[in-house]
Amino acid sequence: MIDDADRLLLARTLELAERGSRTAAPNPLVGCVIARHGTVVAEGWHVRPGEPHAEAMALEVAQEGARDATVYVTLEPCAHHGRTPPCSDALIAAGVGRVVVLSNDPAPHASGKGLLQLVDAGIPVDVVDDDDPLALAARRQNAGFRSAMTLGRPHVTYKAAQTLDGRTATRTGDSRWISGAEARAHVHELRARAGAVLVGSGTALTDDPELTARDCDPPVEQQPLRVVWDRSARLGAASRLAQTVSRGPVLLLCAPGADASRRAAVAETGIEVVEVADLAAGLNLLHARDIQSVLCEGGAGLAGALHGAGLLDRMIVVIAPKLLGDPLAPGLLGETGTSTAQMADAMSLAAWSSEAIGDDLWIDAWLREPR
Amino acid sequence: MIDDADRLLLARTLELAERGSRTAAPNPLVGCVIARHGTVVAEGWHVRPGEPHAEAMALEVAQEGARDATVYVTLEPCAHHGRTPPCSDALIAAGVGRVVVLSNDPAPHASGKGLLQLVDAGIPVDVVDDDDPLALAARRQNAGFRSAMTLGRPHVTYKAAQTLDGRTATRTGDSRWISGAEARAHVHELRARAGAVLVGSGTALTDDPELTARDCDPPVEQQPLRVVWDRSARLGAASRLAQTVSRGPVLLLCAPGADASRRAAVAETGIEVVEVADLAAGLNLLHARDIQSVLCEGGAGLAGALHGAGLLDRMIVVIAPKLLGDPLAPGLLGETGTSTAQMADAMSLAAWSSEAIGDDLWIDAWLREPR
Repeated sequence: MIDDADRLLLARTLELAERGSRTAAPNPLVGCVIARHGTVVAEGWHVRPGEPHAEAMALEVAQEGARDATVYVTLEPCAHHGRTPPCSDALIAAGVGRVVVLSNDPAPHASGKGLLQLVDAGIPVDVVDDDDPLALAARRQNAGFRSAMTLGRPHVTYKAAQTLDGRTATRTGDSRWISGAEARAHVHELRARAGAVLVGSGTALTDDPELTARDCDPPVEQQPLRVVWDRSARLGAASRLAQTVSRGPVLLLCAPGADASRRAAVAETGIEVVEVADLAAGLNLLHARDIQSVLCEGGAGLAGALHGAGLLDRMIVVIAPKLLGDPLAPGLLGETGTSTAQMADAMSLAAWSSEAIGDDLWIDAWLREPR
Repeated sequence: MIDDADRLLLARTLELAERGSRTAAPNPLVGCVIARHGTVVAEGWHVRPGEPHAEAMALEVAQEGARDATVYVTLEPCAHHGRTPPCSDALIAAGVGRVVVLSNDPAPHASGKGLLQLVDAGIPVDVVDDDDPLALAARRQNAGFRSAMTLGRPHVTYKAAQTLDGRTATRTGDSRWISGAEARAHVHELRARAGAVLVGSGTALTDDPELTARDCDPPVEQQPLRVVWDRSARLGAASRLAQTVSRGPVLLLCAPGADASRRAAVAETGIEVVEVADLAAGLNLLHARDIQSVLCEGGAGLAGALHGAGLLDRMIVVIAPKLLGDPLAPGLLGETGTSTAQMADAMSLAAWSSEAIGDDLWIDAWLREPR
């Protein structure tokens, strides 16, 4: 059982874990607090692969203060020898008095093992209920890592801005800008945290976006992989994506049999070109490269196809206080390949929340909770 | 100038005015507080035509306590002899010390006269700035009255529920239900406060709605006029609207030249049938009958036509945590008769706000502020 004092410290572990949000992948985000009688003795978080785990960082700070203390951690401590020694061993060696955990390790080789070692060593362990908001937050924080481990594909978030009447562009494709400057700045932070940013060829050609994470504070160390879903390899050498290969890699996914000369022209610019059979195969390719989270920035056609294939996990929809008044302009989701006759058969979101950002409404919608 | 103590009492006047929200029309909602040194001496509000104005009700309670007191009122006191004597005279006779007013009287025959009489009698008058949130709230509270006085037509609110991907029905027209029970209960209160509820023939035929204000607490005394925009007079005698004429009047607006036998069949049910040239003429007809506020409940076609004609003043959009995933399903607004090529030319809302109601998001959007 956990009490209110425990909850406060667990909320703190989630904050600490966030500090690794741009750098920890493909490792999970983890935050750790060591406390005695509700007073924090030490804090830790995982920064990047090869550097200490959150528990190790906190134990290093706490030293003898860890003895008989309570250790709060967002993810089950590891029990395996990787690039760093197992955290369960370290916690046992430090003589901690109790361990409180927000989520299990979803990795098949790890799940439950760390907790078992602690229990075997006689240390009381509390695992927060799966449906507790803190536990949900911990699993969402590692949606990418958990998707990679449990589904074998990256977690996919579709980000889009729409008018109140549900339009993501004019009928001629113009979409600059729907949302305000504050919301657009938030999108750069989303990019900074994503393993890859994905757009369809329509968006790439119409908007000619750069898709880098810019105007971030602090600036990003590493740009996300920029991916274009472009079956016919239509992207031109003059495109902003092709012109900015020096700022970060760009990958073009085309259909088998895409025109060889077009493919060659794209590859000439430094963009990597790979043939894939379908969207699922494209995501598999990214998974094989240790990319755990994909931010799809449109357009509606690509998003509809992802949703239709069951590959959409989360949607961030920014609604702007505008009306376009044109039913022929594109909406949020294009063709999904199915149509629903009864409203009762519409898909229900697993969870959603909204907040005002600038003049806009920022909606965070989870189609399914991370397992 | 008004201070924080004034603001608290002005906020109270807005609450009091709300008490007349179902009954005051075609008179305006008005709330009044009489206070001495920040302490409330008396409160008043306008209940219905023929009954005392808010100031008269408060003066009656205050009696001698009104002398040298401050009078807070949502609308400029009247200076004219109507069914009740002028409030400006009564305030002067009561010897009040100061009057604070949230909004001017928009009626051409009344505007400014009451304030002038008070000033002429040597009573200090404060009129709150037009762009103060309290003044905005006071004008919105009387959006119907003000529209009638300044535009010569009813104020039109479009209420609709949509999925997160912007769909107000399936492609086959099914829309039951998109929003949850809590939001739907709120809609009945909106109906209770409207002079008329309006739907298009598509909605009338597909949904077969009753459109009465039900499940309201307390129950409504008078149902809104139920209006169907039905150019060809297609509504059948078996429809719920025709079957419930005994619960409140129903008006069918058809186009000139609508089939005479169909018109006769509708009229047979007790529904009034009137020919109008277009939507503006239909609203003029309602205006001539002292209806100041219209709640349009769809469908998208009618709402788009209203918006295209510049006749839409406010939209209440309930977004449900659902995805339909069908771009061929209807959206919020159908054809408006214009298309916008540049997103920069999209219409900006004058104001909007949102709140969670049940599982839904309730958005209140003002296309223009009441004058």
